Amino acid sequence: MVQTPQPPYYAVIFTSLRTDNSEGYNEIGDKLDEIAKEYKGFLGMDSVRNGLGISISYWKNMESIKAWKANADHIIAMQFGKEKWYKQYNVRIALVEREYGFEK
Amino acid sequence: MVQTPQPPYYAVIFTSLRTDNSEGYNEIGDKLDEIAKEYKGFLGMDSVRNGLGISISYWKNMESIKAWKANADHIIAMQFGKEKWYKQYNVRIALVEREYGFEK
Repeated sequence: MVQTPQPPYYAVIFTSLRTDNSEGYNEIGDKLDEIAKEYKGFLGMDSVRNGLGISISYWKNMESIKAWKANADHIIAMQFGKEKWYKQYNVRIALVEREYGFEK
Repeated sequence: MVQTPQPPYYAVIFTSLRTDNSEGYNEIGDKLDEIAKEYKGFLGMDSVRNGLGISISYWKNMESIKAWKANADHIIAMQFGKEKWYKQYNVRIALVEREYGFEK
């Protein structure tokens, strides 16, 4: 579980259902994760898949999200995503206003 | 995958790691899901667990989230959650500003 700074900051919520086609999925996915980490304003990511997939990346501000979205490799992956990997996906961009947690 | 209306609306992002103690977890969890659905302003929920768990509930506005949080059954479950079910959790309340999707 990623640790994020005090709000406000942004979350990009990506929910998806996969196809059976995994061509390039892991390689490109790993590369994109690496690239995101290098981006200014990237705060971290939590990802889970169990049928339904939910990936949430956290960003310092909307500018950092826009820079990431404009990245050519990312655009290529989005195109691959529509053609091959995903039956359905949804992207939500949200401003995190409050956060609290618990740890044993 | 839940369908939500046009933004803006709110997301409650719950990320968690479980303990080995599942006492009451499924029964109370199912009951809480039922109760949430009856709440005014509840828009839907997506949940996945695979080690890490991510549950995102969507709400019309902050008032509906506050009403839900004040619900006695929910409070009981949160207490159970800290005592028994969760090693660690994090709650983020976020205003969804943009949304787009793709479906084959």
